[in-house]
Amino acid sequence: MSESKVVEIICVGTEILLGNIVNTNAAYLAEKCAQLGLVNYYQISVGDNRERLTECIKTALSRSDIVILSGGLGPTEDDLTKETAAEVAGKSMYLHEESKRKIEEYFAKKGLEFTENNIKQALIPEGAIILDNPNGTAPGVIIPYENKHIVLLPGPPIELKPMFENKVIPFVRTLVPGVILSQTVKICSVGESVLETRIKDLIDNQTNPTIATYAKTGEVHVRVTAKAENEAEAHKLIKPMVNELKKRFGNNIYTTDENVSLEQSLVDLLKASELRITTVESCTGGMVASRIINVPGCSEVIKAGYVTYSDKAKRKLVGVKKSTIDKYGAVSAETAVEMAKVPEMGPRADIVVAVTGFAGPDDTPEEPRGLVYIACNVCGNVKVKECHFRGSRQKIRESATTEALVLARMCLLDYFNEKTFKE
Amino acid sequence: MSESKVVEIICVGTEILLGNIVNTNAAYLAEKCAQLGLVNYYQISVGDNRERLTECIKTALSRSDIVILSGGLGPTEDDLTKETAAEVAGKSMYLHEESKRKIEEYFAKKGLEFTENNIKQALIPEGAIILDNPNGTAPGVIIPYENKHIVLLPGPPIELKPMFENKVIPFVRTLVPGVILSQTVKICSVGESVLETRIKDLIDNQTNPTIATYAKTGEVHVRVTAKAENEAEAHKLIKPMVNELKKRFGNNIYTTDENVSLEQSLVDLLKASELRITTVESCTGGMVASRIINVPGCSEVIKAGYVTYSDKAKRKLVGVKKSTIDKYGAVSAETAVEMAKVPEMGPRADIVVAVTGFAGPDDTPEEPRGLVYIACNVCGNVKVKECHFRGSRQKIRESATTEALVLARMCLLDYFNEKTFKE
Repeated sequence: MSESKVVEIICVGTEILLGNIVNTNAAYLAEKCAQLGLVNYYQISVGDNRERLTECIKTALSRSDIVILSGGLGPTEDDLTKETAAEVAGKSMYLHEESKRKIEEYFAKKGLEFTENNIKQALIPEGAIILDNPNGTAPGVIIPYENKHIVLLPGPPIELKPMFENKVIPFVRTLVPGVILSQTVKICSVGESVLETRIKDLIDNQTNPTIATYAKTGEVHVRVTAKAENEAEAHKLIKPMVNELKKRFGNNIYTTDENVSLEQSLVDLLKASELRITTVESCTGGMVASRIINVPGCSEVIKAGYVTYSDKAKRKLVGVKKSTIDKYGAVSAETAVEMAKVPEMGPRADIVVAVTGFAGPDDTPEEPRGLVYIACNVCGNVKVKECHFRGSRQKIRESATTEALVLARMCLLDYFNEKTFKE
Repeated sequence: MSESKVVEIICVGTEILLGNIVNTNAAYLAEKCAQLGLVNYYQISVGDNRERLTECIKTALSRSDIVILSGGLGPTEDDLTKETAAEVAGKSMYLHEESKRKIEEYFAKKGLEFTENNIKQALIPEGAIILDNPNGTAPGVIIPYENKHIVLLPGPPIELKPMFENKVIPFVRTLVPGVILSQTVKICSVGESVLETRIKDLIDNQTNPTIATYAKTGEVHVRVTAKAENEAEAHKLIKPMVNELKKRFGNNIYTTDENVSLEQSLVDLLKASELRITTVESCTGGMVASRIINVPGCSEVIKAGYVTYSDKAKRKLVGVKKSTIDKYGAVSAETAVEMAKVPEMGPRADIVVAVTGFAGPDDTPEEPRGLVYIACNVCGNVKVKECHFRGSRQKIRESATTEALVLARMCLLDYFNEKTFKE
């Protein structure tokens, strides 16, 4: 097998240089390239300026095999990525009739007027591969240049991502002899440093497949990547490593599918068990419900939720006793447990997850910032967890939200294990 | 006044190149630099690699006056930003006793053990300005180099941001003769293209101050920037432009303070009027409550919220009539209005904002994706708004959330205008 190909990512747009937008395209492209086994040494952001863009593309070509540019393919005069890249590669442009027709169709379908400046988007550098854009007007292109490639993608993520998935990934695979495949094992309830200690032997001895850890809020992803002559061989290399991780982390692994989020895995589990979840939130104030409801098709498993930010709301909406709050405080294991025992006021709830905590910004001995109690009630079995989170108010609330989803998932699994055991 | 200084931003970290994290530091630094009147042509991300980092710093120094680097100041062997920058600038390093003492104190305060490798963080290049880091261990430094400056900042945003605000901004101001000041006018309920048409004359005739527009989800920010010999002069230039914007956009301006968010402005308005808000959410599923609750000190004005995702929850939790849902559907102006008339089950609510809509991913004639109704009830006066949002499920939910906050604010202002008019 040959050496790894080097990729450079160039994001074009004055809005990036002004800090108007956060450059999520760079992170997306970098992660996908890593999965493809490409090595990335530089990411560049540059404005819609012909001279500086030319310089960036030339430098990138001097040190990389594949140069991916995003942005600047639109119809306006500011958009000059394609023209500039073609010039650097010494290619002239021609009008691609089929692309023009597709752009006209796109406008017609959306009920928009086709203006002449849009023709610019159908100009294609000679010899380039055209990447259809079903989600917008500007097609992408791949310009071959000596033994290298310049890949031009539209800036909007909703256009860039499907184009990369469906067109660029298959193309890049043809450049690399053999295949590079990776699988992501997503692990919750285990901290990054603990996890790394527990797989130190695997990390130290890695060759093919390689393994890499990625810390996220409240979870860690382990990516197993194999190089092989074909897909079947790559799978054969990946499988034992994934099985080893499964052996070591068991139920802490919530998915081995790159595209499944923690909330998706919880929704799937609830669907499979025909159970319904209800949320009762104080400091997270709706974030737990919101994450579950972001999963398409969640309506089978979540019907209702309560935001009980004040003491009175905790009493009136979900029946926490005044004496409990008076004696233990609103942020206490006892209050969390009572929040999770929400009476049957709304639709049926089999599982209730409740969160109460101090998110700050204040941090006093009486109200220590980051102290959060999370309780989970699965058909009457209530568990409660004390957590200590760090960071800003927003960060603490995000951490508490993730931990609530994790606890709900764990309690659900425990419930089924016990049930199975008893049966 | 002299020409603008050029700044280059270099973010250091292998995790960026692997796409493990989204580079929010670059956007933050770019926006702050734009506000300072600095011009940014390039943003670079590079790994923890001495050779490539050296090359990036040299290139940046060849074309910029100020080079800002973030990341790689920590205690591990991988962290080599400071050593590399010092080497490029030809400075040796010395142990700064006070920084060492501060790091030791930081560890003691957190109850953590001080390990020897942390001393590395107290090594400072000769002649550098030291930037205290109250939120972490690694101090920042500014290395003067010929007539240029290399600014080194820690990677974690919670350390980088306060250090930039409190230390770097005042320093940069000393480099620029005269002052550059900007004020941000935040406008809601006006689309970007409509807004640009309404201020086309101001944009076309701008000299000093300049104006720039920034589109955000559901709002547009207009930044007015003036260059002058001193702060008072700059304010004098900015004021007439801000007043002109106020004249044109009136109540659509929710703040002229850069640091005030839409939810903060709503909370402030509620506090000033001693009114309390309650949320009733279907498709947004807790996002409206969550954004309000992210504002520190919100507990005066929000006590409770309801997530009523199912029809039954809408009936049982907030008393929507079955006949209303049967006749008009769960996503309808009628249902939204009834949701906003939540009976007095929980703590007192003066204002109720309710959201119901189709967030997708399905998009059918019966359930058109993006159709959202938002109702707002201020002390019995109910208004309802039909919205059509575009994008992914998440994006539609975010747009609906912003619009709910905007509607609550507008209804509140109307309520007071009418009240004042009647009195």
